[in-house]
Amino acid sequence: MTALQEMGRRAKAAARELAAAGELRQKALFAMAGAVEDSKQEILSANRLDLDQAERDGMSAPLMDRLALSPDRVRGMADGIRSVAAQADPVGQVVSGFLRPNGLKIEKVRVPIGVIGMIYEARPNVTADAAALCLKAGNAVILRGGKEALRSNEAIAGAMRGALEACGLNPDCVQLVGDTSRASAVEMMRLTGYLDVLIPRGGQGLIRSVVENSRVPVIQTGAGNCHVYVDNSADVGMAAEIIFNAKTSRPSVCNAIETILVHREIAQRALPAIQKRLDEKHVELRGCERTRAILGDGVVPATEDDWAAEYLDYILAVRVVDSMDEAIRHIARYSTGHSEVIVTDSYENARRFTAAVDAAAVYVNASTRFTDGGEFGLGAEIGISTQKLHARGPMGAFELTSYKFIVTGSGQIR
Amino acid sequence: MTALQEMGRRAKAAARELAAAGELRQKALFAMAGAVEDSKQEILSANRLDLDQAERDGMSAPLMDRLALSPDRVRGMADGIRSVAAQADPVGQVVSGFLRPNGLKIEKVRVPIGVIGMIYEARPNVTADAAALCLKAGNAVILRGGKEALRSNEAIAGAMRGALEACGLNPDCVQLVGDTSRASAVEMMRLTGYLDVLIPRGGQGLIRSVVENSRVPVIQTGAGNCHVYVDNSADVGMAAEIIFNAKTSRPSVCNAIETILVHREIAQRALPAIQKRLDEKHVELRGCERTRAILGDGVVPATEDDWAAEYLDYILAVRVVDSMDEAIRHIARYSTGHSEVIVTDSYENARRFTAAVDAAAVYVNASTRFTDGGEFGLGAEIGISTQKLHARGPMGAFELTSYKFIVTGSGQIR
Repeated sequence: MTALQEMGRRAKAAARELAAAGELRQKALFAMAGAVEDSKQEILSANRLDLDQAERDGMSAPLMDRLALSPDRVRGMADGIRSVAAQADPVGQVVSGFLRPNGLKIEKVRVPIGVIGMIYEARPNVTADAAALCLKAGNAVILRGGKEALRSNEAIAGAMRGALEACGLNPDCVQLVGDTSRASAVEMMRLTGYLDVLIPRGGQGLIRSVVENSRVPVIQTGAGNCHVYVDNSADVGMAAEIIFNAKTSRPSVCNAIETILVHREIAQRALPAIQKRLDEKHVELRGCERTRAILGDGVVPATEDDWAAEYLDYILAVRVVDSMDEAIRHIARYSTGHSEVIVTDSYENARRFTAAVDAAAVYVNASTRFTDGGEFGLGAEIGISTQKLHARGPMGAFELTSYKFIVTGSGQIR
Repeated sequence: MTALQEMGRRAKAAARELAAAGELRQKALFAMAGAVEDSKQEILSANRLDLDQAERDGMSAPLMDRLALSPDRVRGMADGIRSVAAQADPVGQVVSGFLRPNGLKIEKVRVPIGVIGMIYEARPNVTADAAALCLKAGNAVILRGGKEALRSNEAIAGAMRGALEACGLNPDCVQLVGDTSRASAVEMMRLTGYLDVLIPRGGQGLIRSVVENSRVPVIQTGAGNCHVYVDNSADVGMAAEIIFNAKTSRPSVCNAIETILVHREIAQRALPAIQKRLDEKHVELRGCERTRAILGDGVVPATEDDWAAEYLDYILAVRVVDSMDEAIRHIARYSTGHSEVIVTDSYENARRFTAAVDAAAVYVNASTRFTDGGEFGLGAEIGISTQKLHARGPMGAFELTSYKFIVTGSGQIR
């Protein structure tokens, strides 16, 4: 038995205990939050070692920022665990139920999935969020973070495991993989029989590698080539604000937009207003011919690659379209199915756009930046699913459950 | 572009049309049922050719029976399509919805998955059932049946495609793969970008191969190592009837039982009664030492392999256990998570067993044979999921949908 198989075996045993521990699970979550706060010094010292190493390795400033913890961020982690603890328990919910003509009562009841595997990158807060959400839904979790954050993750996971034990729960409900080599990620992808699902969270390269190579069922998260379509009936000021917010409030995240599509009848008025707002943050525009005819040669000519790009940067592709249908076709071709917006004052167009566009979240007159577990009211999120099986969009504890049928009879045979 | 990729491209286009065609989908289903009935002669002639070939190839009698169609069976297929047509439309259902404090309205709305791939074996009725259920849920489907049934499947699919076209729907909503080589199955498993999900339906070998090799997300169906636990409080007559029904009414299906676990306090009374009933169908028993001490040396000694076996035959493994907890542990170890039964008159044991046993369906005092789409009131079923992601247990049209979030605002930014 390899080290990971042994972790899998222990996780399965822990998951079985956990499924039966209703009230104790809630109590343990509050204890975990307290333990993270109480271990602030240890966590910050471990994080300091990770940061020193990262600096020696020449890590970029944005990545350093993702890795860095502060007293505030540690408190934020603890508060996140508490907000998960305070939610309604998804386990045991009777989803539906009915009586068959033969007298059998069939109830569909929500149950934990079992053992969740997480493969993620630099941010140590994922360790706390993921453990809390998995535990909330009655699942054991095996966490494999990035090597850059290993010491921080060990300190956070250690605090949480201590709290579990103090509550009388099996600490193996939360296990951290110490081996952060590529080999350990590959082995997790082969850990069928132990892992019920694997959730990758991080950059596109990581996610694609897991989706293509895993034998364990995967929930795909993250990639967002998101669009705003500005309808000919749009309020130009509203369109400019939504685009400015969706592009610049945090360009590096998956719910930021990458391309805008502007109806030709409003382009002459809308494009200069949008450009003016985006100029405040020095956003580079890459436009189609008609865009450049309106905004001038300062706009870089867009190529086919621009329509498909997820820039995650202060760059925005711009295309003038003849109709909403052309916008819908563009989105069908290039969208990653994450978040799509129409800005419109037409009831009929709002109705048609939301029906025709196939994405996890389709917006009328609002920013894509709301596609987020917290903003959707889930407390925290374990990721944003861009696939259609099992869960789509922001995933909280509820999405980490399955169901079973409980059928009660009085001797029925068929 | 390969032939299968071209089918995938056409399926995607058809799926987009279909998602927008509400009422027409229902109309098309009734037309498909009519077309299957009207094509009875062609379907039966094609089936005759398949049967002649199968006979020349030395196919076994049970497989021949699965392959064979009759006027009654063709009518049964048409009626199956009609019962799917008559169900409520899952597409467009508002699953939940709420208003956020910032005024955003968020609705979770059921939508089709997109394009479903089916890989299945000899039974031609799967062609009709799968096409009807996929279409009901707004999905296009690519069907790859077994080579033994190719002519029958072509006749059935041809009739259904004709009906789609006559209704003004794209016939590529239902496509049948003509190449039944192993290579075409392998290519389907690699058809990411076209197929949203792949559902294998058939023997264990087929299912395992798809689960292990597919890059397209899979819904695992079928394998059933199902148990009946006879509690010390059980009504012995009821236990014998349930065991007899669950073992012998159709031993070759996944919801038949393979092992019984009998509490030691009732074994002396229950085992002879159970054996007597099973003797009527000449069921071979393979028992533990304590079973053989009660029933005699006529019972074959059971080995470790017997606890894990899915016999699909008139064979039943028998084990005497010291307690319900021992039965629960046995089930946790050997069950494939399909259907599990307790026969009991103890309220507390019924409650504990249904909570502790992790399977798609957990029964109190009823036969496992009810784990079936029709018996659960789904009309038809596309398979019985034994995995925990997305869908578990019998899957009908509802389980072939996903959801999206429609978020409507008035200019909200974050």
